[in-house]
Amino acid sequence: MEVIALPGVPEVGQGDDLPALLLDAYRRAGLQPGDGDVVCVAQKVVSKVEGAVVTVGDDEEVAQARRRLAREHAVRIVADTPEVLIVETHHGLVCANGGIDASNAEDRTLILLPDDPDASAHRIVDAVSARTGARIAVVITDTFGRPWRLGQTDVAIGVAGMAPLRDERGGRDRTGRVLEATLIAVADEVAAAADLVRRKADGTPFILVRGAAVDAADPGPGARALVRPAREDLFRRSQGPDRMG
Amino acid sequence: MEVIALPGVPEVGQGDDLPALLLDAYRRAGLQPGDGDVVCVAQKVVSKVEGAVVTVGDDEEVAQARRRLAREHAVRIVADTPEVLIVETHHGLVCANGGIDASNAEDRTLILLPDDPDASAHRIVDAVSARTGARIAVVITDTFGRPWRLGQTDVAIGVAGMAPLRDERGGRDRTGRVLEATLIAVADEVAAAADLVRRKADGTPFILVRGAAVDAADPGPGARALVRPAREDLFRRSQGPDRMG
Repeated sequence: MEVIALPGVPEVGQGDDLPALLLDAYRRAGLQPGDGDVVCVAQKVVSKVEGAVVTVGDDEEVAQARRRLAREHAVRIVADTPEVLIVETHHGLVCANGGIDASNAEDRTLILLPDDPDASAHRIVDAVSARTGARIAVVITDTFGRPWRLGQTDVAIGVAGMAPLRDERGGRDRTGRVLEATLIAVADEVAAAADLVRRKADGTPFILVRGAAVDAADPGPGARALVRPAREDLFRRSQGPDRMG
Repeated sequence: MEVIALPGVPEVGQGDDLPALLLDAYRRAGLQPGDGDVVCVAQKVVSKVEGAVVTVGDDEEVAQARRRLAREHAVRIVADTPEVLIVETHHGLVCANGGIDASNAEDRTLILLPDDPDASAHRIVDAVSARTGARIAVVITDTFGRPWRLGQTDVAIGVAGMAPLRDERGGRDRTGRVLEATLIAVADEVAAAADLVRRKADGTPFILVRGAAVDAADPGPGARALVRPAREDLFRRSQGPDRMG
């Protein structure tokens, strides 16, 4: 498997043609899209292109505005302390500040999550297919913390063109024993792999992963399939339908 | 970055020379260890070599014995339902059945976690250095679930030769803004990347990762540094010092 940062992508703005920028980035790397390629796209560029950006007025601290917006957009408050606000978004994502980002943006702007990252990924897959004939997969990535482990990892918040999970349940290992508990979140693993060739500061929104053991899908169930259903969630601090705003 | 499964490793047993097996696997792949290589080693082979294996007596179901052992070895019971037992191990790992595994082993045997996976990783790093002069890093990987996301991913339970976390706090992005919340769990991302070239059934315990943006360390703080301190853990269902066993 190869993981390749596609370099030299300019700052993007609302309405930019993201598939065209991706194809430019391939060209600059001396590469062409190929069947089975998985392209990881940083959430921030998707949000910017889709206009999922809010400018904070002068009457409010940016950090406060972020907390307010995260609450307003949440379907559930998971944890709320002076240090951190963790919410569940309408996408089913559990993350600090609802995934709303302040870094790598102009002053007083906040970058929200794309409204439907699976659809965003699907649009890129379809556009690349229409323009080149290649059947690629796209994983839109964001950086999340984990409850029991320090440090953040990149995960998949939007997926198209590949199965986000690889189901090995019922398979047998080399000693003939039935494998248990082998539903592998390959889309999250692809996102994590891509993060290893990117420093946050360097602005490489497109990372190409070639040769990963993932299964093509058209478009597949998306990153939605990575959300654990509430009834299986052992770690809900509040059990009620505490839907917000 | 390249991720390469080193093929053809035989079944291992207690007392086997794991660094020698790794060097054999390099040779079979036509490769040599190089400075900066990160080798992911599946926890199961480490446990087997170290004899961290228990044979279940005829008077007990294997699944029941696993639950009993997981409880006995736990420092904290995190969740206990008919479907799943999640515990915190003495390593600080929160995982189903305390990481005790029944698959890919002979009948009626259970494979425990290595007693000190950071030390296990360090021994491999040192042996490879002594035999070849190459300064590699080793990540011992296991497959864990996550509370809010479906599917499992591989994570680092033992680390030596590299910094498990990359601290970008205080850095600046390309627009000059100070980066926030950028403590990246690169060892977990390496483990996840390695899993993408391995199907669970195929017995490839050594995966080579070359060219990852990780920092060498000798031996470094180990996977222990990836454990979130209890005081920062927002998701403890019980707060007391409910130490078991």
